[in-house]
Amino acid sequence: MVIILKSGTATTEIAELEGYLSAYDLKVQETVGEHTTILGLVGDTLSVDMDTLLSFPCVEDVRRIQEPYKAANRKFHPEPTVVDIAPGVSIGGGAFAVIAGPCSVESEEQIIEVAEAVKASGATLLRGGAFKPRTSPYAFQGMRAHGLELLLKAREATGLPIVTEIMSADHLPLFKEVDVIQVGARNMQNFELLKVLGKQEKPILLKRGLANTIEEWLMSAEYIMAGGNHNIILCERGIRTFETATRNTLDLSAIPVLREKTHLPVIVDPSHATGVRKYVDPLSVAAVAAGADGLIIEVHNNPQKALCDGPQSLTPAQFDTTMKKITKMREFVATELNA
Amino acid sequence: MVIILKSGTATTEIAELEGYLSAYDLKVQETVGEHTTILGLVGDTLSVDMDTLLSFPCVEDVRRIQEPYKAANRKFHPEPTVVDIAPGVSIGGGAFAVIAGPCSVESEEQIIEVAEAVKASGATLLRGGAFKPRTSPYAFQGMRAHGLELLLKAREATGLPIVTEIMSADHLPLFKEVDVIQVGARNMQNFELLKVLGKQEKPILLKRGLANTIEEWLMSAEYIMAGGNHNIILCERGIRTFETATRNTLDLSAIPVLREKTHLPVIVDPSHATGVRKYVDPLSVAAVAAGADGLIIEVHNNPQKALCDGPQSLTPAQFDTTMKKITKMREFVATELNA
Amino acid sequence: MVIILKSGTATTEIAELEGYLSAYDLKVQETVGEHTTILGLVGDTLSVDMDTLLSFPCVEDVRRIQEPYKAANRKFHPEPTVVDIAPGVSIGGGAFAVIAGPCSVESEEQIIEVAEAVKASGATLLRGGAFKPRTSPYAFQGMRAHGLELLLKAREATGLPIVTEIMSADHLPLFKEVDVIQVGARNMQNFELLKVLGKQEKPILLKRGLANTIEEWLMSAEYIMAGGNHNIILCERGIRTFETATRNTLDLSAIPVLREKTHLPVIVDPSHATGVRKYVDPLSVAAVAAGADGLIIEVHNNPQKALCDGPQSLTPAQFDTTMKKITKMREFVATELNA
Amino acid sequence: MVIILKSGTATTEIAELEGYLSAYDLKVQETVGEHTTILGLVGDTLSVDMDTLLSFPCVEDVRRIQEPYKAANRKFHPEPTVVDIAPGVSIGGGAFAVIAGPCSVESEEQIIEVAEAVKASGATLLRGGAFKPRTSPYAFQGMRAHGLELLLKAREATGLPIVTEIMSADHLPLFKEVDVIQVGARNMQNFELLKVLGKQEKPILLKRGLANTIEEWLMSAEYIMAGGNHNIILCERGIRTFETATRNTLDLSAIPVLREKTHLPVIVDPSHATGVRKYVDPLSVAAVAAGADGLIIEVHNNPQKALCDGPQSLTPAQFDTTMKKITKMREFVATELNA
Repeated sequence: MVIILKSGTATTEIAELEGYLSAYDLKVQETVGEHTTILGLVGDTLSVDMDTLLSFPCVEDVRRIQEPYKAANRKFHPEPTVVDIAPGVSIGGGAFAVIAGPCSVESEEQIIEVAEAVKASGATLLRGGAFKPRTSPYAFQGMRAHGLELLLKAREATGLPIVTEIMSADHLPLFKEVDVIQVGARNMQNFELLKVLGKQEKPILLKRGLANTIEEWLMSAEYIMAGGNHNIILCERGIRTFETATRNTLDLSAIPVLREKTHLPVIVDPSHATGVRKYVDPLSVAAVAAGADGLIIEVHNNPQKALCDGPQSLTPAQFDTTMKKITKMREFVATELNA
Repeated sequence: MVIILKSGTATTEIAELEGYLSAYDLKVQETVGEHTTILGLVGDTLSVDMDTLLSFPCVEDVRRIQEPYKAANRKFHPEPTVVDIAPGVSIGGGAFAVIAGPCSVESEEQIIEVAEAVKASGATLLRGGAFKPRTSPYAFQGMRAHGLELLLKAREATGLPIVTEIMSADHLPLFKEVDVIQVGARNMQNFELLKVLGKQEKPILLKRGLANTIEEWLMSAEYIMAGGNHNIILCERGIRTFETATRNTLDLSAIPVLREKTHLPVIVDPSHATGVRKYVDPLSVAAVAAGADGLIIEVHNNPQKALCDGPQSLTPAQFDTTMKKITKMREFVATELNA
Repeated sequence: MVIILKSGTATTEIAELEGYLSAYDLKVQETVGEHTTILGLVGDTLSVDMDTLLSFPCVEDVRRIQEPYKAANRKFHPEPTVVDIAPGVSIGGGAFAVIAGPCSVESEEQIIEVAEAVKASGATLLRGGAFKPRTSPYAFQGMRAHGLELLLKAREATGLPIVTEIMSADHLPLFKEVDVIQVGARNMQNFELLKVLGKQEKPILLKRGLANTIEEWLMSAEYIMAGGNHNIILCERGIRTFETATRNTLDLSAIPVLREKTHLPVIVDPSHATGVRKYVDPLSVAAVAAGADGLIIEVHNNPQKALCDGPQSLTPAQFDTTMKKITKMREFVATELNA
Repeated sequence: MVIILKSGTATTEIAELEGYLSAYDLKVQETVGEHTTILGLVGDTLSVDMDTLLSFPCVEDVRRIQEPYKAANRKFHPEPTVVDIAPGVSIGGGAFAVIAGPCSVESEEQIIEVAEAVKASGATLLRGGAFKPRTSPYAFQGMRAHGLELLLKAREATGLPIVTEIMSADHLPLFKEVDVIQVGARNMQNFELLKVLGKQEKPILLKRGLANTIEEWLMSAEYIMAGGNHNIILCERGIRTFETATRNTLDLSAIPVLREKTHLPVIVDPSHATGVRKYVDPLSVAAVAAGADGLIIEVHNNPQKALCDGPQSLTPAQFDTTMKKITKMREFVATELNA
């Protein structure tokens, strides 16, 4: 941490500031120049509050030098985290997974039909929304508790573990049988929900918020980890920009950035990122090429009748084509590319 | 609503689409050109799902022409909404209010001292955070339930109604005595929370999300209104951009835009928008000049010891100076400017 | 400037880095911690290249602490700059100006009619585009050299000094009689143009780029000033965000930020920022309340027949109403508000 | 194009508007509803000015339905454009190219050394900046005319065609021997420069602006094409967002979007997009996987001594490693992936 002092700061003011800092286990070093004086702080600065420092009248600016996250930080945990979901189904550290399924669970027939189709094509997990975050209160809000039941039936029918979104800590008891609990983009900073999820053991699929930095995203993972749950899968799903040709802008550079900064696995959601069916295929293979640990893709047996997000859903046949490419690309990356 | 068809669409496909649309109470009109055919839809399109239309193979694009919100829409409710909070304290329709207080409640002495100071300067409501949304799990998370008790003591001591943030629907019973419940920027699209708040009667102060459009913000208000609660105060608090000189970019144009689109009152939070104490004063008076119905300003009796957001808090003396300007500006706008 | 070294950096590497730095007139101070070592640099760091430092293998990050601009910096020039344009017409340091006129010069009658109208309402400068930056090559590109001639006729008829945009250094000879040369948002980082304008003496109205930070904007001013021309008026005209209700997002917080960081005058363009006629009036008065040194407003005698930007142009009657409010607000701010 | 009329518009007003539209070769169709009337316009709407329509008092909104570009539009030119640069060197329509070289030309030795190295690794064109757009006037501005001479010597030594940036139309005569003229991000909407480049024959590498939409980018290509020059290579180089871990956010979804909308070739610049050396490799292969027609990568023989952008430059050895992967990926995509 570096503290930049205002020009003309009195030595008594510096002494007062250093007195405040003496409560922490830090080394403090002054560098005095004609126009500027800076204090360099090294040690465990995680608990030093930047805002408090900024409130000292003599302080012009404060810059953090170390990452504000610890449990999620690769520096202190160099080995990649492998999230084990079910026998034979893991994500991270070389284990690759494709999660596929409809935006919403709509009926028993629908979810089982889609589950069987995506399984046949090679998906290893089933997604399906029971609780749906919709911008409009007049839009279909999901089948809720009943939708969760239907997902379990689909798991029974196919053996695919299920991933589904939670929208309120209240609903946690309903998720007892779910395999992976998803936190949606709009809830990435619903800190009360994150705390509750940190105190239970199921793996969490944590989507990046629409306008959140990678650092904030890791801080949200840190919230869950601080509670004790280290089974977190990060999911890049596009950020909001001024571009309108795609619903959001998929940030594939987040993959190598996260690989460097954290040990947690990273997957990509090209369906929500683009909002357009025909862009899902090329961005899926690009994500694998960039090093993603997995993908989450929307598939619907009848996109035209989907109760939400139809335009971005692949048909089972389209998914089958894309899945073949994903598999080829995955093998190519794992063997030839880095050979 | 306008549907743009793909070039070369067969008449049978158009017939199928029109068959689907016949379930709605709409007029549909075709305009056929050499390269493009468009269908114009007028009537109650609120329940027509754009995504479903986009899933028809013959549809190239769909554009909404009417606003997707109804209860919040000024077209159907031309009179401004006045939110009554306490005897003599209202916001909207000419009633102006200044909400002031610390970022966090820290102690009984602190909150009462600040409450008395801001009341003396002319504030009409007291703010203070008990449940605090902090980016880091290692940062002070608020005094929670005990903080709410201290706010009530400050209300008792000063008579100022209190505004404080809710972070989870679970906590609602604790807010029984609170006057205005705040929904923070990070929870603007926590739809389950909005639904719960729509079914109770307390006024809601709804902050704009960091990366949300004005339309999405009004859709979140619509969520609350759809539950029956029409007492909503909208609060502009800055949006996220690439600029770094301020914490966020305050969007004052939201005031006239909202004035045109909705009947709900609009207030401005210059403290969180800028994150810098010295910019609060000029932007407060600018917000009043632009037509805001009120302001929410952070004030701390000892910003240097504030447990959060110290750099943006005014001291009581600074607030007093700014409050004098706000009052002058308010009178000038109400009388001379538009005379 | 602060250099953060990688963990485990050898002392020989630090010595090599310090050897490189010894070529500059700087004090360098090491702060050594368990996981981090930082080097604090104070002195004239303006010519130290951050990118070069970042290329040393032992360097993890480099942070600039002092502003990278000098001529535009208020620290080294505390008095506000007053740009004198014509006898009795100045901007800055208390002198306030309203620039008004059409988006484009379209005919002698039009420009003279508008010039007389805005003068009668109190505008002190006339704007009008002769060279027009249009997104489409098929759109009207301005009357170019002939447009400049018509502007001069309007000046002759009314005495109003003229402001008009330059789009290429090639065209400079044509601007010999112009009073203020405007650099548009899209050319804010057309560095070759800025260099040419720095070597001539006419005042420059420098618009902020659509996606530029305040610091980059001041660096563009610095380009002009480095050539010798210190007569620069900064113009905030909205930045690009995800919001669509307005064409751009007007950043009024730029006014107090710039007031702190630079001595150059700052004006606001609510017409281009919002793109909507009815929002021009409230944002004009808000800009004055926030401390702007002036405004630039589009006025057209027949907006319906305007060859560009009709929807944001005020009619002369609307401008007259807004101008009355601007004048009242200006007087109120100068006398009562800060009394 | 669709015109949305204000509620309560009189039939005389509609007649006036339709009178105005009768000057164009369009079909106009009314759809009348209780609250809304819309006019559908089909035909050649390219020359219809949206702003003029918006200025009619009865018009609430106007939406364009067809793309505003024609020459660049894939609809009217389904075959991919192949830009031929030199014997055996083309980009587009299956021809793939890698452009490599230093940010700046610094000396004859440097540019020839880098050129030989990148050629040996398989690059097919040499890049190198002679005129450099730098944010600061105090930074190295490039060797300018002398830099162009050194590039020509490097071409002579290696046979690699050269790509270099133009910053002003004035400098065009100096580019007589250059193979591909680059227009930088900051000049993407320097329309006067685009016009000049449209009237000469050399291929143009057109970078996307930092905050420009894909549609605006294609309109800039349209400017050049309108002048007669159809040899344009589009280059995605990252857009500006709130994320700070990378210099910009690389938008790889632009590749499939452009593939659909235009016939022009698309290449990617991972060096400028990320600003960080170690992210160049994974994003290069991801770009190829997503279907890019080529890459442009910064390589410096001594990044630590580079006069600009050192931190993002690869060493020749690193480039060799990445180039091997690019080649493998290119072959894999061209043969196995889509087999």
